[in-house]
Amino acid sequence: MDDPVLLTGAGGRVGQAILRHSGDRFEWRLLDREPLSSEKLPAGVSKDDVYAVDVTDEAAVEEAMEGVYAVIHLAGDPRPEAPWDSVLRNNIDGTHTVLQAAVDAGVEKFAFASSNHAVGAYETDERTPEMYRPDDDFKLDGEELPRPSNLYGVSKASGEVLGRYYHDHAGISVVNVRIGNLTEGHPPIDYERGQAMWLSYRDCAHLFERCVLADYDYEIVYGISDNDRKYYSIDRARDVLGYEPTDNSAEFEG
Amino acid sequence: MDDPVLLTGAGGRVGQAILRHSGDRFEWRLLDREPLSSEKLPAGVSKDDVYAVDVTDEAAVEEAMEGVYAVIHLAGDPRPEAPWDSVLRNNIDGTHTVLQAAVDAGVEKFAFASSNHAVGAYETDERTPEMYRPDDDFKLDGEELPRPSNLYGVSKASGEVLGRYYHDHAGISVVNVRIGNLTEGHPPIDYERGQAMWLSYRDCAHLFERCVLADYDYEIVYGISDNDRKYYSIDRARDVLGYEPTDNSAEFEG
Repeated sequence: MDDPVLLTGAGGRVGQAILRHSGDRFEWRLLDREPLSSEKLPAGVSKDDVYAVDVTDEAAVEEAMEGVYAVIHLAGDPRPEAPWDSVLRNNIDGTHTVLQAAVDAGVEKFAFASSNHAVGAYETDERTPEMYRPDDDFKLDGEELPRPSNLYGVSKASGEVLGRYYHDHAGISVVNVRIGNLTEGHPPIDYERGQAMWLSYRDCAHLFERCVLADYDYEIVYGISDNDRKYYSIDRARDVLGYEPTDNSAEFEG
Repeated sequence: MDDPVLLTGAGGRVGQAILRHSGDRFEWRLLDREPLSSEKLPAGVSKDDVYAVDVTDEAAVEEAMEGVYAVIHLAGDPRPEAPWDSVLRNNIDGTHTVLQAAVDAGVEKFAFASSNHAVGAYETDERTPEMYRPDDDFKLDGEELPRPSNLYGVSKASGEVLGRYYHDHAGISVVNVRIGNLTEGHPPIDYERGQAMWLSYRDCAHLFERCVLADYDYEIVYGISDNDRKYYSIDRARDVLGYEPTDNSAEFEG
């Protein structure tokens, strides 16, 4: 696998976590709506491999897609409180544009940054805060229907369905990663929910590496570290992708 | 329940099936993008209750929503082969506009015309044509994840997720009806798939009546007649909505 991996939204938090820890693992092609400053670029990435492109710009996305082996699609409005018009355009329409371009270019694998907000409304008053605790059995495993907590979550669930369609229709391998709570260095303090869905930077980078390297058809997995507190199963990520997380939010407690 | 029922897409095929058989059951408020000719209007509907409005026009939809008890939302691009830009605007954005207006106006129930195309890719080469036959056990029941057969189906699956969000967020009752193959008079001839998912006009009207009259929270049901050939379960429609279909495509065979 010597062909490039296209990373959209490379300047965002998830993109930077990936590049920080996996910057030398692939031949990267980096795309972001904003020009990327040099401190956001891993060593060895030339300016020719950096695209300042909006994912709703079809022609520019098609150009960035040429010769790409795999896509990690993170670009979009990342705000849980983002208004509908923005998630409709940037997240739903943008994901369609990137997926369609990927299929047209013969890309083999597509990892989509979905979100815990696609299933946030499972956290009902009856279940919380117990579900955030290590001794609670409630777990989501990716086979459940979406229950978004906001319109951002609706847009992520829609992106997952777009992936399902393009996989069935065109054969491209698609994995939707419902990313938990990505924070650098340590999990959130005094926030049970954030600790339960914590994803460390290095586990994030490792998980998306596995999305590029593993063989799969269509998958929905949860992107969290191996936390003692856990209401997302990581069995599928382990079994199908070979995800082997290093971190556990419990090690930072007390 | 004396307040009006708003029917969007009233001039389309599903809307006309409903009005033909249930035209005198409710105080209707009818909305369609095109002006409705008099033969498309049931007796007793005054011109004041007919709105020529595009569902992407927020202000006009809000006006049509005033005082409404329940919405049957059918409007959208109905073509399975519709291009992305059209289903994005008319089906996904349009459904958001209608749902948001319904919640803002205090509407109690929302029935959404979803489609068999939201799950059409379950009909794999391995399963067909056996799954279209009466002795085959494969059944979808509404708890499965969407597998759209086209971008139209993606848009319907996205509409379902919007309904899920607005139910969880605002409490409005939402039922997504995955409509099968609606044909007038008799089921399709020499087309096993169409017979398996046949929905007669009168069963269609009855089913949407039940969506207005029954009590429910959030549901996904299949909209087909009581066909011997069947790969969609109608148990949930029976149990939750009180759906009691009259027709069966098998009665037209042979």
